[in-house]
Amino acid sequence: MATIKDVAKLAGVSVATVSRVINNSPKASDNSRQAVLGAMEELQYHPNANARALAQQSTETVGLIVSDVSDPFFGAMVKAVEQVAYRTGNFLLIGNGYHILEQERQAIEQLIRHRCAALVVHAQMIPEEELNALMAHIPGMVLINRILPAYASRCVALDDRYGAWLATRHLIQQGHRRIAFICSSHPISDSTDRLQGYLDALKDHNIELDEKLIAYGEPDEVGGEQAITSLLGRGRNFTAIACYNDSMAAGALAVLSDNGIDVPEEMSLVGFDDVLISRYLRPRLTTIRYPVVAMATQAAQLALALANGDPLPEVTNTFSPTLVRRHSVAPPP
Amino acid sequence: MATIKDVAKLAGVSVATVSRVINNSPKASDNSRQAVLGAMEELQYHPNANARALAQQSTETVGLIVSDVSDPFFGAMVKAVEQVAYRTGNFLLIGNGYHILEQERQAIEQLIRHRCAALVVHAQMIPEEELNALMAHIPGMVLINRILPAYASRCVALDDRYGAWLATRHLIQQGHRRIAFICSSHPISDSTDRLQGYLDALKDHNIELDEKLIAYGEPDEVGGEQAITSLLGRGRNFTAIACYNDSMAAGALAVLSDNGIDVPEEMSLVGFDDVLISRYLRPRLTTIRYPVVAMATQAAQLALALANGDPLPEVTNTFSPTLVRRHSVAPPP
Repeated sequence: MATIKDVAKLAGVSVATVSRVINNSPKASDNSRQAVLGAMEELQYHPNANARALAQQSTETVGLIVSDVSDPFFGAMVKAVEQVAYRTGNFLLIGNGYHILEQERQAIEQLIRHRCAALVVHAQMIPEEELNALMAHIPGMVLINRILPAYASRCVALDDRYGAWLATRHLIQQGHRRIAFICSSHPISDSTDRLQGYLDALKDHNIELDEKLIAYGEPDEVGGEQAITSLLGRGRNFTAIACYNDSMAAGALAVLSDNGIDVPEEMSLVGFDDVLISRYLRPRLTTIRYPVVAMATQAAQLALALANGDPLPEVTNTFSPTLVRRHSVAPPP
Repeated sequence: MATIKDVAKLAGVSVATVSRVINNSPKASDNSRQAVLGAMEELQYHPNANARALAQQSTETVGLIVSDVSDPFFGAMVKAVEQVAYRTGNFLLIGNGYHILEQERQAIEQLIRHRCAALVVHAQMIPEEELNALMAHIPGMVLINRILPAYASRCVALDDRYGAWLATRHLIQQGHRRIAFICSSHPISDSTDRLQGYLDALKDHNIELDEKLIAYGEPDEVGGEQAITSLLGRGRNFTAIACYNDSMAAGALAVLSDNGIDVPEEMSLVGFDDVLISRYLRPRLTTIRYPVVAMATQAAQLALALANGDPLPEVTNTFSPTLVRRHSVAPPP
């Protein structure tokens, strides 16, 4: 691969001049700029981003940690952050944490070692003190989907509890009293907060909790299939289900349909997140909208402003979810 | 942020010794190793990946270009490459090309500037000669989803034409003669190859082509809704549809269902890719399996072996798709 010295030699200028042209320094003359760019093209020379990053102690790279990019919810988050990065001339570096402590740690460590100027981090497993220490050391780090009390202004999260409360209340308002909850088995705040919202809504409407109506699974389609299967196995003594997310609702819907249980005539179903699939299920899924694009966009803009010392954009630290009414909820039979 | 000098000072050793410990050199004594690791932890010092990359002229980073990570097909590809990277102690850097020439170019340029040791590239828009030149300059670059004749052994692709031929033949074997095709509007080889497979199958079975039965849209759910809407608008004189991918099939299915057209009793439908959603649509979608995980895994292993000068793994350069029979196809009414 060609080096900066080869470029200088071919262009008939010094290495310092090549460097000035690469860094758009006004000190480079038009003549030498033309000679250098011609030589770079001829030699297929690519300026070394690592060298620039080392000199500047930062990169043109925005780092993002998600749980799993192949989950459509995180796919939407990645795309939103990437568009902010692209518009501001930055490049995106992505790591998966998989809700596993050691992998979340390693992913953040790698992004720090790549000297990302700005970091948007979804990390549910790392303890609060450890995140506090990272936030203190990395001024351009912003947390998404979790509020760190000591750094609340650098966090963008959703009121998960309110979302699950809304979903459950909607079912209660339709007349349901025996309402099941399909919950994620991941030990993260999203799971406990959404479960709590369900419990709160029951309590607020004087409905006694039946713990047999709560089932757990991986937060995906297969987990939803398993959870509904155990619920039905305990006896079909419920008329509605609130789900941890749309993927689990899609799995539950498939099992209900296979068993000839009509949604919504015989069983009502509410999802959470409003990912694209929820509009293409039949019946179209009533769900809770998670404004992931707006949240990820704000988080990325905030991280870049913090990293560059720019004036900070206005940021909503805790977003409120909303109900999206489609066709999977009806009064009990 | 702490520097290597701070670590050396606190550990009471030279900067060279710290460097030896970081790089796991056998020359560092156990005593100095302990002192350095302790000082690194106390100062929260993170070795600079850019400095290491600069010294070694490569990084511990695998680069991947896809079209769009928020598309579930590419999400699965990202996850497969990431798992190879993770297992081999590498980190993944991802760029989106969006099937736009300039963005594909920029994304590759950024990965090259970050001196990725290994590159897996999905680039449909960049002309062949330009890719040839890149392959010549970057020994660890592997192409996915496209065969470059001059570098066929460094390409992993699917026989798209055969896949669409299989889908169309399956419909013909069920007795269909009026078969529509919902095609992607992206000007890439996947689109033209799948369309050609459809045309070949018609020809092989002496069925005359009716160009009014071909409709185009973006390769997603909304594009599928638009394409089926224009097909139905031209008159409902077909009994089956082969689709460019599962997302377009999901969109078509939604419109058919809204219009009371029963799938498969009144209309048969075949997808392509076998992404997760195809199993959760109702009826479950008959589709063509794109072995994206196996292909992306092989591409990543090949790129790493090429980059490191290791013995090359056995790679299937052209994968054959297979038919997955579910419940969206029946004989014509």
